[in-house]
Amino acid sequence: MEKIPVGILGATGAVGQKFILLLTDHPWFEIRELAASERSSGNRYQDIVTWNQAVPIPETIGPMMVKNCEPNLDCKIVFSGLDSSVAGNIEEAFAQAGYWVFSNAKNHRMDPDVPLVITELNPEHLNIIPYQQKNRGWEGAILTNANCSAIVLALSIGPLHKMFGLETVHAVTMQAVSGAGYPGVSSLDILGNVIPFIPGEEEKMENETQKILGVLDQDRFRPAAFTVSAHANRVPVEEGHLECVSVKLKEKASVEEVIRCWQEFTGPAHDLKLPSAPQQPVVVVAEKDRPQPRRDVWKYQGMSALIGRVRPCPLFDIKYVVLGHNTIRGAAGASLLNAELVLKKGMLD
Amino acid sequence: MEKIPVGILGATGAVGQKFILLLTDHPWFEIRELAASERSSGNRYQDIVTWNQAVPIPETIGPMMVKNCEPNLDCKIVFSGLDSSVAGNIEEAFAQAGYWVFSNAKNHRMDPDVPLVITELNPEHLNIIPYQQKNRGWEGAILTNANCSAIVLALSIGPLHKMFGLETVHAVTMQAVSGAGYPGVSSLDILGNVIPFIPGEEEKMENETQKILGVLDQDRFRPAAFTVSAHANRVPVEEGHLECVSVKLKEKASVEEVIRCWQEFTGPAHDLKLPSAPQQPVVVVAEKDRPQPRRDVWKYQGMSALIGRVRPCPLFDIKYVVLGHNTIRGAAGASLLNAELVLKKGMLD
Amino acid sequence: MEKIPVGILGATGAVGQKFILLLTDHPWFEIRELAASERSSGNRYQDIVTWNQAVPIPETIGPMMVKNCEPNLDCKIVFSGLDSSVAGNIEEAFAQAGYWVFSNAKNHRMDPDVPLVITELNPEHLNIIPYQQKNRGWEGAILTNANCSAIVLALSIGPLHKMFGLETVHAVTMQAVSGAGYPGVSSLDILGNVIPFIPGEEEKMENETQKILGVLDQDRFRPAAFTVSAHANRVPVEEGHLECVSVKLKEKASVEEVIRCWQEFTGPAHDLKLPSAPQQPVVVVAEKDRPQPRRDVWKYQGMSALIGRVRPCPLFDIKYVVLGHNTIRGAAGASLLNAELVLKKGMLD
Amino acid sequence: MEKIPVGILGATGAVGQKFILLLTDHPWFEIRELAASERSSGNRYQDIVTWNQAVPIPETIGPMMVKNCEPNLDCKIVFSGLDSSVAGNIEEAFAQAGYWVFSNAKNHRMDPDVPLVITELNPEHLNIIPYQQKNRGWEGAILTNANCSAIVLALSIGPLHKMFGLETVHAVTMQAVSGAGYPGVSSLDILGNVIPFIPGEEEKMENETQKILGVLDQDRFRPAAFTVSAHANRVPVEEGHLECVSVKLKEKASVEEVIRCWQEFTGPAHDLKLPSAPQQPVVVVAEKDRPQPRRDVWKYQGMSALIGRVRPCPLFDIKYVVLGHNTIRGAAGASLLNAELVLKKGMLD
Repeated sequence: MEKIPVGILGATGAVGQKFILLLTDHPWFEIRELAASERSSGNRYQDIVTWNQAVPIPETIGPMMVKNCEPNLDCKIVFSGLDSSVAGNIEEAFAQAGYWVFSNAKNHRMDPDVPLVITELNPEHLNIIPYQQKNRGWEGAILTNANCSAIVLALSIGPLHKMFGLETVHAVTMQAVSGAGYPGVSSLDILGNVIPFIPGEEEKMENETQKILGVLDQDRFRPAAFTVSAHANRVPVEEGHLECVSVKLKEKASVEEVIRCWQEFTGPAHDLKLPSAPQQPVVVVAEKDRPQPRRDVWKYQGMSALIGRVRPCPLFDIKYVVLGHNTIRGAAGASLLNAELVLKKGMLD
Repeated sequence: MEKIPVGILGATGAVGQKFILLLTDHPWFEIRELAASERSSGNRYQDIVTWNQAVPIPETIGPMMVKNCEPNLDCKIVFSGLDSSVAGNIEEAFAQAGYWVFSNAKNHRMDPDVPLVITELNPEHLNIIPYQQKNRGWEGAILTNANCSAIVLALSIGPLHKMFGLETVHAVTMQAVSGAGYPGVSSLDILGNVIPFIPGEEEKMENETQKILGVLDQDRFRPAAFTVSAHANRVPVEEGHLECVSVKLKEKASVEEVIRCWQEFTGPAHDLKLPSAPQQPVVVVAEKDRPQPRRDVWKYQGMSALIGRVRPCPLFDIKYVVLGHNTIRGAAGASLLNAELVLKKGMLD
Repeated sequence: MEKIPVGILGATGAVGQKFILLLTDHPWFEIRELAASERSSGNRYQDIVTWNQAVPIPETIGPMMVKNCEPNLDCKIVFSGLDSSVAGNIEEAFAQAGYWVFSNAKNHRMDPDVPLVITELNPEHLNIIPYQQKNRGWEGAILTNANCSAIVLALSIGPLHKMFGLETVHAVTMQAVSGAGYPGVSSLDILGNVIPFIPGEEEKMENETQKILGVLDQDRFRPAAFTVSAHANRVPVEEGHLECVSVKLKEKASVEEVIRCWQEFTGPAHDLKLPSAPQQPVVVVAEKDRPQPRRDVWKYQGMSALIGRVRPCPLFDIKYVVLGHNTIRGAAGASLLNAELVLKKGMLD
Repeated sequence: MEKIPVGILGATGAVGQKFILLLTDHPWFEIRELAASERSSGNRYQDIVTWNQAVPIPETIGPMMVKNCEPNLDCKIVFSGLDSSVAGNIEEAFAQAGYWVFSNAKNHRMDPDVPLVITELNPEHLNIIPYQQKNRGWEGAILTNANCSAIVLALSIGPLHKMFGLETVHAVTMQAVSGAGYPGVSSLDILGNVIPFIPGEEEKMENETQKILGVLDQDRFRPAAFTVSAHANRVPVEEGHLECVSVKLKEKASVEEVIRCWQEFTGPAHDLKLPSAPQQPVVVVAEKDRPQPRRDVWKYQGMSALIGRVRPCPLFDIKYVVLGHNTIRGAAGASLLNAELVLKKGMLD
């Protein structure tokens, strides 16, 4: 099979770099275009990027010329790691011009005709796309994935909601600095410290999870009815968002039943054998003091949510901790999985 | 007034060192005796301690000879920073021999005839002491203060419980490494990491707060009826426990009323002008991203609980973050305040 | 004595904030003017500063209006914490207009008619000022202090050079992130890491120390003849530059003689009883594993260089470690001491 | 080829765990025996180890029974990660009983009949073994590798010494906490801090490099004649020792010649195609601010020394920074490479 050319918008940023890592040697896709701000365009990628990954810039990517984020790229699919300050208009311009935009930006996530998809949880939300195209007069489309903390939370509560029904969710995050991009969090703010505030993060966790786990009724999303309360904190960790979650279920379930629900959950990413799908979207770990971000974040290629310390909650039903890789599973990897799903389903044909 | 001689049990440990800092130049007390394990006794303090404080060992303390933890010290009051592996028997032996033991160890906290006191919240629990002495045939007594995380939590929920009544409390901690003593947490475990488990901590937070905010009915403690659910985490922070708390109140209250409740709360430590009492036990900070452990832990001499981000909770009524100095307010300072109260009330006469 | 009004250029920056801390409640000076970039000017200080200090913004400072960095401030002395990208021209404009500018910026340090002064080491270099004023046709003047790493190094080698003569100096720094200002070093770069490169730092250490310890011959500086080789590293430490130094002396000296040299060194800052002068510019600590930045940086108000591990060097004569507070002793405090000296000597009359 | 069974002494420790990682799936060796302290022996490995690696315990290893460190193991080769407090006698007992002991402990390194070998640098030192066996009446032997900091230093200066001759070496280390084992360095000592002292480390760097780069003359080691001066520091880094080195050469060489010397150096580990040999023992990196421990320590499987910032030194000839993985290249990997060399050379036949 010939590989499908794709472009990356915001290719020099933190999420853009993760896209490059995940798309290099991808079995279906091939990076054809890199686009970034005007300041970067017209230069070779390797000459202007501040590369922050553990492995070197792939040899095929380094010498590529960076272009402007204008809809004249030689591809039909673009992955967007653009900052929200510019993503709104640029992504629309691409969709208008016929591109399928897989976006990590917050700008369009809550739009009533834009799907907010976690491949394993709500692939049927893609059915909004024809309405989006009709509404907006677009040949292309915008598909979004959720905020990194919301994705990690949703992966853990989603299977429970499907099996038992959720009533309430309480989540406290301890988030890695890479979630704020580069340069992002100043070392003076976070060394030996915790910052108990991340602008907009709690609202995203509260709203986006309801949209993701809600129902698409023809051309309208009905958000899920459970309530979410979130506290968001930044901690001096490089990669991996850890969340302490307590949930109340509609249909009561024991700790064992909840664990089994997670262990047996697969979702369509796995069933369709999408190349970036983890073996299991949710993995329950046995050690009493795990998962831990530094030690566990890269397990399963950073694509699974790791759950530990599942136990009864004196207030709700169940409490546990969940860890996810914020820039892989919580960003670039989530978009990529969505693109694989769209391709597999033939929506691009 | 002549100063009252006191002794410190476990004088070389993390809490013992904080006792030395707080008792040096104390207006009422004077350190007469230092006691520690057999390995240390018979040596000058400065020769065997691994001193971990920002200021040097006080000059009067360094040359003092360390004694065994046996009840033949020349004082009537002892402060115990002993490890729980030995505190149980030693503290009993001292109480038996007529000493008043102000203990930080967990061993006797939940005993039905031992008071678990936060000076500002439940000073009336000291009235159990005569029953304790009678029960056990002691001339002395054991008074305990709570676990460090429980103290910080209790200082924040206590005033709310007194004014509005508490129904439920949900707390997630991010605790400093100093809470585990020295050497305590290995750097290999915590650098760039979070450990989502601290043995026994969640149970202490759940049980001790109920005892503290409960009622002493003659010779029996009736625990408070609210439910607590806690998640405890260790973070790479030196000093200061930060907690994300959500509470449901019996009598509904607005954010403003809750803030005013904290601001107006003083408690007897302040009213009696105890020398170690902070100006305000609970301080509400205005900045949207505070309190932060590294920047705020030493404010008000480390004796106040600092509260920030008070806001409505979609699930309960109110959510907020609270920070307290774990080895000052959460340990040595809490014991000292209790001793000052006992002295002021004439219980030692 | 009526206090002398002063202004702070770059008042919102990292060094500017330290100036505010040091000048509030200063016995001789009073902050009359705050100036910063156009973006900040016209606003109240407290509304636009990102305040990064452990203590709150002084009450008298918070409401002050920030002005532009133009030479129409109501004072004669200005302290400059300006970034080097703008300091050059602004400082010249102020000096031209009659202000005495005490600068932390690198721009003019190596100018042949600008003194680079560490109060304790080379106060006689101030005698260049009349030549500077004549050369440039200025009524005011520019006085600079050295780079933070160079100051810490110079304080330790200066007394040795004066007593024994220096031949060679080898210094390896481990520098705190605050040396790069705020936001400065990204947490993604430094968490759990060391960066073995700081642009321009090694050259400054090599050149500035030679100028400081050189001789002013009429209107010409003759740099000291010793050779310096430096390696500069950034480490995940908040405040305090630690340096491993090896020195070769012209006149041989034992470890004991070298220690005595430091202990007996005072310099004019102390002799003239300047209010910001530390008791001892150089303090030799006894513990075998000290000084350490987190534990020792604030000793002696952050104004002394702390030296430890003095021992023979198999290659040179002596090796040791030295610690200094980079934004106090290495920046704002150094400028302030220079201003106190100028005032005390009547140069401003 | 049938695999050769080996045993690991001190299998539960930090270096022991690295041996397990490196020996699992090794093409020549197979882990047959795990031995540790009496406290651990008699248990399954997975039940008593505090496993601190990023990957799980290999499935074949977890259920193995741990034995005592007594010379009745079913193998001829043992790798020792024993602590120096016990290594001396145990390793001798094994050698006496006919085992070949590849040791990381310091106890025998400087013995006049024990080789201290870095495979790439001084493989000919193995020729002392027959003398050792004769002297001590052993059928087996003890072979040691150097201290982790000394190995990293030696890999960088060794090729220079062979090509140009060394006169003097000045090295300042910034060492990872994993170098102290587990639990090792307390988080209270190192968070946001640097400790400018590591007991015995500087002496080892000074003495061991001279032995390694010295000459074996029949049955006597003649240490190399250059002088080394070292400063050792502990920094809050998980893995990887970084060293700032300045060298003076006998035969002058330019920066380019020095770089070429390193790039062309291979050594016998590579020439003999030993399975654990890195492609290049010394790699020169191009980026101006690299190598950095967190970002580079795992490159080349942690088996190469990475060198950066090569530049002229105002005092000596050349200065540079070098990074090496302290528990791989600086410990377990170094022993393994030595064992592979011994096997390849047929010394065990």
